[in-house]
Amino acid sequence: MRGDWARAALVHLFAAGVLLLSAPARAEDGYDLWLRYRPIEATAQAQYRPLATAVVSQATSPTLDAAKTELTKGLSGLLDRPVGAGALADGAVVIGTPASSPLIAGLKLPLAPLGNEGYLIRSTSIDGHAVTVIAANRDIGVLYGSFAFLRLIQTRQQIARLDISSAPRLKLRLLNHWDNIDGTIERGYAGHSIFDWHKMPDYMDPRYTVMARADASVGINGIALNNVSSDVWMLAPMYIGKVAALADVLRPYGVRVYLSIKFSAPVELGKLKTADPADPMVAAWWKQEVDAIYRQIPDFGGFVVKANSEGQPGPRDYNRSQAEGANVVADALKPHGGTVFWRAFVYSEKDPTDRAKQAYNEFKPLDGKFRDNVFVQTKNGAIDFQPREPVHPLFGAMPKTNLALEVQLTKEYLGQATHLVYLPVLFKEVLDWDTMAKGKGSTVARVIDGSLEGHTTSAMVGVSNIGDDRNWTGSQFNQADWYGFGRLAWDLNLTPEQIAREWLAQTFTNDPAFIDKMAPMMMASREAVVNYMTPLGLHHIMATGHHYGPGPWVDDLPRPEQNPVYFHRADAKGVGFDRTPSGSDATSQYAPPIAKLFAGPDIPDRYLLWFQHVGWDHKMKSGRSLWDELVLHYDEGVAQVAQMRQTWDAMKPYVDAERWSQTAAFLGIQAKEAQWWRDACIAYFETFSHMPMPAGHAAPPHDLTYYKAVYIPYAPGRTGYTAAPFKNTPKDPDQNGIATQIP
Amino acid sequence: MRGDWARAALVHLFAAGVLLLSAPARAEDGYDLWLRYRPIEATAQAQYRPLATAVVSQATSPTLDAAKTELTKGLSGLLDRPVGAGALADGAVVIGTPASSPLIAGLKLPLAPLGNEGYLIRSTSIDGHAVTVIAANRDIGVLYGSFAFLRLIQTRQQIARLDISSAPRLKLRLLNHWDNIDGTIERGYAGHSIFDWHKMPDYMDPRYTVMARADASVGINGIALNNVSSDVWMLAPMYIGKVAALADVLRPYGVRVYLSIKFSAPVELGKLKTADPADPMVAAWWKQEVDAIYRQIPDFGGFVVKANSEGQPGPRDYNRSQAEGANVVADALKPHGGTVFWRAFVYSEKDPTDRAKQAYNEFKPLDGKFRDNVFVQTKNGAIDFQPREPVHPLFGAMPKTNLALEVQLTKEYLGQATHLVYLPVLFKEVLDWDTMAKGKGSTVARVIDGSLEGHTTSAMVGVSNIGDDRNWTGSQFNQADWYGFGRLAWDLNLTPEQIAREWLAQTFTNDPAFIDKMAPMMMASREAVVNYMTPLGLHHIMATGHHYGPGPWVDDLPRPEQNPVYFHRADAKGVGFDRTPSGSDATSQYAPPIAKLFAGPDIPDRYLLWFQHVGWDHKMKSGRSLWDELVLHYDEGVAQVAQMRQTWDAMKPYVDAERWSQTAAFLGIQAKEAQWWRDACIAYFETFSHMPMPAGHAAPPHDLTYYKAVYIPYAPGRTGYTAAPFKNTPKDPDQNGIATQIP
Repeated sequence: MRGDWARAALVHLFAAGVLLLSAPARAEDGYDLWLRYRPIEATAQAQYRPLATAVVSQATSPTLDAAKTELTKGLSGLLDRPVGAGALADGAVVIGTPASSPLIAGLKLPLAPLGNEGYLIRSTSIDGHAVTVIAANRDIGVLYGSFAFLRLIQTRQQIARLDISSAPRLKLRLLNHWDNIDGTIERGYAGHSIFDWHKMPDYMDPRYTVMARADASVGINGIALNNVSSDVWMLAPMYIGKVAALADVLRPYGVRVYLSIKFSAPVELGKLKTADPADPMVAAWWKQEVDAIYRQIPDFGGFVVKANSEGQPGPRDYNRSQAEGANVVADALKPHGGTVFWRAFVYSEKDPTDRAKQAYNEFKPLDGKFRDNVFVQTKNGAIDFQPREPVHPLFGAMPKTNLALEVQLTKEYLGQATHLVYLPVLFKEVLDWDTMAKGKGSTVARVIDGSLEGHTTSAMVGVSNIGDDRNWTGSQFNQADWYGFGRLAWDLNLTPEQIAREWLAQTFTNDPAFIDKMAPMMMASREAVVNYMTPLGLHHIMATGHHYGPGPWVDDLPRPEQNPVYFHRADAKGVGFDRTPSGSDATSQYAPPIAKLFAGPDIPDRYLLWFQHVGWDHKMKSGRSLWDELVLHYDEGVAQVAQMRQTWDAMKPYVDAERWSQTAAFLGIQAKEAQWWRDACIAYFETFSHMPMPAGHAAPPHDLTYYKAVYIPYAPGRTGYTAAPFKNTPKDPDQNGIATQIP
Repeated sequence: MRGDWARAALVHLFAAGVLLLSAPARAEDGYDLWLRYRPIEATAQAQYRPLATAVVSQATSPTLDAAKTELTKGLSGLLDRPVGAGALADGAVVIGTPASSPLIAGLKLPLAPLGNEGYLIRSTSIDGHAVTVIAANRDIGVLYGSFAFLRLIQTRQQIARLDISSAPRLKLRLLNHWDNIDGTIERGYAGHSIFDWHKMPDYMDPRYTVMARADASVGINGIALNNVSSDVWMLAPMYIGKVAALADVLRPYGVRVYLSIKFSAPVELGKLKTADPADPMVAAWWKQEVDAIYRQIPDFGGFVVKANSEGQPGPRDYNRSQAEGANVVADALKPHGGTVFWRAFVYSEKDPTDRAKQAYNEFKPLDGKFRDNVFVQTKNGAIDFQPREPVHPLFGAMPKTNLALEVQLTKEYLGQATHLVYLPVLFKEVLDWDTMAKGKGSTVARVIDGSLEGHTTSAMVGVSNIGDDRNWTGSQFNQADWYGFGRLAWDLNLTPEQIAREWLAQTFTNDPAFIDKMAPMMMASREAVVNYMTPLGLHHIMATGHHYGPGPWVDDLPRPEQNPVYFHRADAKGVGFDRTPSGSDATSQYAPPIAKLFAGPDIPDRYLLWFQHVGWDHKMKSGRSLWDELVLHYDEGVAQVAQMRQTWDAMKPYVDAERWSQTAAFLGIQAKEAQWWRDACIAYFETFSHMPMPAGHAAPPHDLTYYKAVYIPYAPGRTGYTAAPFKNTPKDPDQNGIATQIP
C-alpha cells in the first residue's frame, strides 16, 4: 500500500513537472475549494476509468447543463483523460429526470420518496450497457447527485455497485451573508464582500458562479445577500435589479436569494408616516414592495429580519409583538411562496433581566402566533455564538412555531481568520443536545427538522464566512466550516469526523497518512479554543467591539449586559453567573430534568460557570480546586495548539507549499494568541482568587496592567467603525499591541 | 507569416488541451500581469532555445537570487522546457556584477556610466562559449537587466547579437499607495488594500512578493504604503514593526518603503504641546522617531507629506511656511539618506483667489528654501488629475527646488475601474510640455530629470491603482498604466505606443493581428474620455465626492472652489473660466510666450474653456460655433467608445475567455456611461446656450431633471464615507440611478 502511494507521488511529481513546462504552475491558493479535481493516483484511475467513460444527458436546462459540465470537468480532471458528453455506451454516466430523459424514465426508479431535491445513484444496465445512473425528480436533484458521484471518486469509494438514495433532512439550508452594500462585512474575516454591487448587473464576476457551485456541492439552497443590520437602500429599485441579475446566476445551482430588510423601510423608502405592522397602509406597502421583487425574481426566497435588536427598528417601536411584525411581512410573501426568517436575537439594555433569559421571555408567549411561512431564527445559544454555550432554551419551548437554528460560520468569537477551529463539532454538539421537551430523545435535530412536533418545513442557517479573499474564507481550514455546514444540514446524521475526512480528502489529499493525523486534529480543535479562551462555562469575556483577544476586565461599556464582568461575575468569593433559582433562574427555562441538572451539583464541568457562581476553592469532580482546574484548562488549550503545530509541521510532505505555509503561519498566530488569552485571563482572575499557580504551571510573564494596555486599533470585522485616537502607551514597543508583543 | 501564426495557434490549442487533462485549467484572470511567461510559438522557441540554455550566477544574494529565479522561471515558461541554473556552456546567460562574478569581472565591461541601477546585456564569448551576459554595478541592476532580457523574448526581439545598455533617467520612481490601515483605499477602484496589516508580520501574503516583482520589472524603486491623508497610527511602534517586515519582503526587488505622515504626529503620538516646526522639541521628536524607524529599516525611503491641504494639519497652523514644515522632517531624515516628498497640492476655501493659482502663489516664493533632500511633489496640473489639464505652472518656476511630478494611475476622474483609458498618453503629453522656462526645449521632462537646472536628484511619482482585486488594478487594461508609468519613469524617451505594444505582447499575445489593432485603440482611448467627459478645456464637472458620473450643475458645496459651477462658469453669454489678465490672470503664472498664447485667440481648442470664457456662438477654428463644437466632441467621445467595443469584439479569437469577457463587459459599462456623460452635460449646458442641436445630433433623451435626479449611493473609492439617507426618487425604476437607467 505504501509503495502504491510512493509511486503515485512520483507520478504526481512528473505530472507537475510537465505542467511547469507547459505553463508556469500557479500555486494552489485555496480558490478551488474542495472542487479541485486534480488527477488521482494512477491505480485508482485505472479502476475508475471504465466506470466513467462519458456523460449522457438527454435534455437541456440550465441545471442539467451545470450537472453535465461539473461531471465532465470533474471526471476529466480526476481521471486525467477527457470525459465528455456522449452517447450510451459501457461506462456511461446517465443523468436526468424521468421527464427529461427517456433512458431514465425507462428504468422506473423508486424516485418518489426523494422529493424535490433528493437523488438516486445506481449501477445498472441499459440496452446491455453497464452504466451508472444519476436520477432525480427534479433537475436540481440531478445536480446534487452529480456532486455526490464526484465525491465518491474524490474520496476513493467504489463506484461499481452503487445503489445510493439521498434526500435532505432539512428543507431550507441557508447561508446569511452579513455583507454591506459598501463592501464591508459585519464580522467578516475573509476580506471584503464578494458582491460587487457597483458593477452589477453589467458585470457579473465569475466568482459568483464558483460560489454557487460550491454551495450546491454541499446542498446549500439559499443565501441572504446582505447584513441583518440592513441598509434600506438594498430594497431600492436599482438594487433589486442587481439582485435579480445575481439570482439569474445562482438559479441553475438551486440557490435562491433572500434579503435582509430593515423594518422601518415603509417610512424610509415608502415615505409612510409609520412602519406599524397593524397599519393597513404598511401592509399594503409591503405587499407592493414584495410584488415588485417577485416580478423580477420569481423564485425569490424571502426576508431575514433583525428587529428590535441592537438598535434595529422593529414592531415594538409601535407596541406590537414580534409576531405581529413578522406576520405583516409574511402575509406579503405568502402568495409568492416566500419565507420570513425572524431572528430571536433580542435583548434590551433597559431590561435588568439576565440577558440569557430575554429572548425566551419574549418569544415563548408568542408560540402559535406566527404565520406558517415564518421561521423564528434562533441562535444556537442564548448569548452570542460563544466557543461553547448551552443550547438556547427556545429549542423545544415553541412547539407550534417553525424554529430555524442559526449558527455562525464566521469565527467572531473563535479566533476569527487565523485560528484553526473546526466548527462542525460545535454544530453537532448543538444538534445532538437533548432538550427533553417531549421526553428523552427530543434533540435539537428533531426540533428543527420538524419531526418532534410534526412541522412540514424545516431550516438551518449559517452566518457565512465567505469573503473576497482568494481562499474564500480567510483560511484554508475555515473552508471546512462552509463545507461541513452544508453537509450537516443535508444529513444531520453525519458525524463531524466523517465530514472532516471527506473534506480533507477533497481539499488536500486522500493519503491516509495525512487524513489519519489531520481528522483527529480537526476534531480536537474546537475543545482547544474553549480551553484557551473560555473554559468551564466562562463566556463573552472577549475584548470590546471587535472581540479580538481577551478582555475579561472590561466593565465600562454603557450597556451593562455587554460587559465581560456582567458575564463572569468574578469576585473575592468565586466566579460564574448564578443562573440557578437562587440567582437569575435562567435554568428554569429548560425542561425540568435539565433545569435540575444545571442548578445542582452534578452539572457538567463544561457548563459550570455559565450557570453557577462557584468558590475559587470549590472542589471539582477531578478533586482539584476550581482555580487549579481553570489554570489547567487554559494550559491545556495552549498545549493543544502546540500539538496542532507539530502535527501540521509533519504534514509538509503532503501539502503544496503555499497552502502549507499559510496554514503554518496562521497556526503560529493561533499559538501566540492562545498564550495571550491564557496569560491575560489568568493574570486577571488571579486578582480575585489570590491563589498560587498550581505546581508546574508558570505564572503569566506580565502583570495585569500589561495585558489591559494592549490596544488593537484596527482589528478586522467591524463595520462603520473608526479607531480610537492614538493612546500614548509606554515607550517599550512591546507595549503597543499583541501583534508585536508576544514573541 | 499568417500560416506560422495559425500553426502556432494550433500548437497552443493542443498544449491547452494537455493542460486541461493534467489539471483543470485555471482561467487567466490577470493575476500574472505582464509576467505570464506562457510558451511562445514553436518557431520562436526554436530560435531562442540555443541562446538561453542555462543561467549562470556565481554568487548569492537576495537580489541575485531573485534575478536567477525570474530568469529560470521565465525562460522555462517561454521556451517550454526546463532552463535551470547551470555552469558555463554555449547559450548560457551569465548574470552578476564584477564584484560577485569572476566571469563578469574578466570581461571588463563598460559599466561605469550605468550607475547604481543600470544594466548591460551583451552577446559575447567566455572561454570559447557563446553566452549572453547581464551585468551591472550593483545586484539590482542585474535584476533589472534580467527583466529586460525576458522582455526581449516576450516581445520577440532578436537576442543573438545584443549590446544593450540602459540606466534610468530618474533616480526615484515611486508609487504612492493611498491605502488606509483599515483596508479601504482613498480613490481605490481595484478592491481593497493588498496590505493585510492585521496579520503582519506573522503572515506575509505571497502577493507582496508578486507586486515587488512587477514593480521591479518596470523599474519602480519605492512605494509609499499609506494614504497621504494619513492616520497617525501608522507611525506607532506596532505598525513600524509591520512595515519593517514588509520592507524585508520588498528589499530584494529594489523597492524601498516610504510612509505618509501626519504633520501633527508630534502632538498626537508624541504628546507634545505643539507640532510647530520651529520648536526644538518638535525637531527632536521627529529625529527620535526617524532614528527609531531606521533602526528597523536601514534603507527606509522617507516621508510623503500632505500638509495644510483638504483638512490635513501643517506648518501654516503655526504660521510657518511650507518650507519650514518640510525642512524639520528633512533634517531628521538627512543623516539616514531619507527623502521628503512635500506635496504642493494646497488650496484654501478661505482664499478667494482662483484655485488654479494658489499652489504657485504659495510655493514659488519658497524656491531655494527647501533642503536638498526635499522634493516638492507637484501634480501634473493645477487642479486635480483631470482628463486633460494644462501643465502645472510650478514646473519651470522653481529652478532651485527639486520638483517631483505626481500623476494619478487610479482613475478617480477618468472612469475609475471600468473605462479603458490608456494613461501613458496623458503622462507623455505632460512630460513633453514645453514650459519655456529657459527658452524652447524646457520640457517638463527636463525639469523633473534635473537637467534643466542641474539638479542631482530626480523623481516621478504615480498614485497607485493597485488593490486586492485578482487583476490587481480593477481591470485588465488598467495594468497598462502601472506598467507604462514604470517604463516611462525609467526612460522618458519611450513613446506611449511603444509601451502599449510591448505591454500588449506580454499581457495578451504577440500576434500582430492583435497588437496592430489594439495599440491604436489604446492610443486613442485617452482622447475619447476627454471628449465624452470634459472636451475643449472643461474640467472638474464630475459628481460630488465620488466623482463618478457627471455633475456640472452642482453648486451647493460649502467650499465654493469644489463646485463644478466654479470651474465651468456657464451663463447665458457663454462658458469657461476666464483666467486671462481680464479674469483671474492665472495665465501669467506661465512663461510669457505661453501666457500670451493662452490669453489670446490662438489658444488651442483643447485648453480653450480652461482659460477663457467664450460665447456660445463663438466661432471656433473649425468654423463651427462653440456650441456645435461642444456637442460634436461629446458625440465623438461616444462614437470612439463604440468603435473600441467593435475592435474588442473582433479580438475575441486572440484573448482567453475570462479576460475577454470581463473587458467586454467593462467596455459595455464605459459605453453606457459615456452616453450618460454626453446626454447629461448637453442637457445641462443647453439650459444656458438655448441653441439647437447641430444637424444630425440627437437631443438628450431626457430633460435635465432626470439627470440631476440620478443618485449613486455607494460609488466606490471614498473612505470614511456613509451614503446619504434614501431619497424618494420617482417610482419609475429607471429613475433610481444610472446603473439601471440606461439600457
